[in-house]
Amino acid sequence: MTNPLIERWIRPEVRALSAYHVPDSHGFIKLDAMENPYSLPEVLIEDWLDTLRKLELNRYPDAGAEVLKEKLFEYLGLESGQGILLGNGSDELIQIIAMALAGDNRTLLAPEPGFVMYQIIAQSLGMKYVGVSLENDDFNLNLPAMLAAIEKHQPAVIFLAYPNNPTGNLFDRDAIDAIINASDGLVITDEAYYSFAQKTWIGDLTRYDNLLVMRTLSKIGLAVLRIGMLVGSKSWLDELNKIRLPYNINALSQASATFMLKHVDIFEQQATQIRADRQSMFKALDQYAEIIVWPSHTNFLLLRSNLAETIYDSLKENNILIKNLNGSHKMLAKCLRITIGTSEENQAVLEVIEQRF
Amino acid sequence: MTNPLIERWIRPEVRALSAYHVPDSHGFIKLDAMENPYSLPEVLIEDWLDTLRKLELNRYPDAGAEVLKEKLFEYLGLESGQGILLGNGSDELIQIIAMALAGDNRTLLAPEPGFVMYQIIAQSLGMKYVGVSLENDDFNLNLPAMLAAIEKHQPAVIFLAYPNNPTGNLFDRDAIDAIINASDGLVITDEAYYSFAQKTWIGDLTRYDNLLVMRTLSKIGLAVLRIGMLVGSKSWLDELNKIRLPYNINALSQASATFMLKHVDIFEQQATQIRADRQSMFKALDQYAEIIVWPSHTNFLLLRSNLAETIYDSLKENNILIKNLNGSHKMLAKCLRITIGTSEENQAVLEVIEQRF
Repeated sequence: MTNPLIERWIRPEVRALSAYHVPDSHGFIKLDAMENPYSLPEVLIEDWLDTLRKLELNRYPDAGAEVLKEKLFEYLGLESGQGILLGNGSDELIQIIAMALAGDNRTLLAPEPGFVMYQIIAQSLGMKYVGVSLENDDFNLNLPAMLAAIEKHQPAVIFLAYPNNPTGNLFDRDAIDAIINASDGLVITDEAYYSFAQKTWIGDLTRYDNLLVMRTLSKIGLAVLRIGMLVGSKSWLDELNKIRLPYNINALSQASATFMLKHVDIFEQQATQIRADRQSMFKALDQYAEIIVWPSHTNFLLLRSNLAETIYDSLKENNILIKNLNGSHKMLAKCLRITIGTSEENQAVLEVIEQRF
Repeated sequence: MTNPLIERWIRPEVRALSAYHVPDSHGFIKLDAMENPYSLPEVLIEDWLDTLRKLELNRYPDAGAEVLKEKLFEYLGLESGQGILLGNGSDELIQIIAMALAGDNRTLLAPEPGFVMYQIIAQSLGMKYVGVSLENDDFNLNLPAMLAAIEKHQPAVIFLAYPNNPTGNLFDRDAIDAIINASDGLVITDEAYYSFAQKTWIGDLTRYDNLLVMRTLSKIGLAVLRIGMLVGSKSWLDELNKIRLPYNINALSQASATFMLKHVDIFEQQATQIRADRQSMFKALDQYAEIIVWPSHTNFLLLRSNLAETIYDSLKENNILIKNLNGSHKMLAKCLRITIGTSEENQAVLEVIEQRF
């Protein structure tokens, strides 16, 4: 039964969208979503639960998440005049930015292939989305094409994932500098994979009046909490904060994140391990003539192979879920994305691949 | 230091907003925010923490929150063809609805005085907001004015809080029926205070093709979790779901809510107690010639008094925080809103008021 009111009232851009699909991963070794494979050490779990035991479940969360923000301010090494806007994951921060800037012919621009939520959120808010192709083969920024697109579309906001997902590389700093300078609108460096790249624009924030940096606690091992952070000049954040819903970070997440930040060295050790395992995995995969694997500054590897579908299917038959990117973007034909897991999980992947060649 | 780029890019409607202000309530008896005053019984806390102990903090939440939604489907008594959209609080659901419908001259309409987030969210998304005054004195719907406004503005969506906040009353069912029938757009009954009114439109959903019902777990005693629910025909919810960010309900909230629903009888007993205490409180306040108190179907009471400011200040001096509505809306001059607390808290309120008269 169709309801004509839906066609009348739901905006056509929304009707054209598909709901974001997350595949069922029950029982799989999960190497599809850039999760940290390590769980919290046993010794911390009881302390963490003690923290939650003290919460009043019947009360609204602290609307400003002030205690958590104070901890994060220190963790991120911010300066006075700078601030933090917290989102229910980076997704919500992208949405808040887009909501604040949306309007007739307002453009959101991003290099492609990139994080799909930039486009989905722009479209869901009726913003114009412009994707600018990266260079072939090395997936670097095509600076002339970016500058031409900025000139032509005058984007309200540009998202630059640093490093980029799903290509895993860090864009050239001089190219980013040129883009920030050429742009009149906001530029956001999305540093979701910071722990694996250890490069940031936070120290450069004061050099620009149109740069903000986005981070997350998801990739370091706290995906469960949904804590995204937008940092930069308070003058921008104060405006964006007007759109943030007052209780967007629930008290369980606030208390958990505040607790975890006291033990951030554990997550940093895990990231160090993941970086080392990424390099081992890179070397192992790079040996196959049938596989192209790109150097990565993230916790995943991008590969291309004529046997991509076969590799994907073989892994799935062996209960290992990775991401098949074939068909998702023209530059990602025959590409797969494998999240770095534990040593055992990575070994399991390599054994399945070895059997195919 | 002003940044001219902010004026250029942040939409004027957003710049005109103020950030939602939540007063500091540390050390106060908190009767300002319609929270259930009772915390979780000790006996359940350990079981709840055992549930959380099993979570994998490094993994993303179930994007569809399927286990929780199944429990809620049963709890809400839904029928086949109906579904649930979960929001990070009702606030996010209002935002999702507005995002899906926003556009040039699209109108969000609500009776006034009402829940302030309808207007704030409409404005933050560039929707036209139309408020239609309730009847004086009894705060019932002014049906002729509502029908005239519907005719004139053809609203994309109408929010009817049932019962209404901050007035505490249930609007007339026949008037709501007439509004749903007269409207071509969506009508949402916002049943945040359902537990204290025990009246719902869920059973009427199938009679209309433009009605959805909104609920929340906040007022029954789980404000910490931020779980809002929009229920109704799947055909509407499927479209709205396209705008929902995939991981909007974090795993701590999903697991906690699923656990709590197994013990919903405890929250229902607490609601029964609150309803009884509300009636006692109503009678006690109704005795004062200097106070008008309105009958309430919620967990709060609305009062008017020439001594409103004095009462508010006296309570504050005695570490009791209530809501001063004076100045928030022309129909709320000299009005106060007091959330029903524990018997001891309510008694403390009455003692302070008694001293003023």
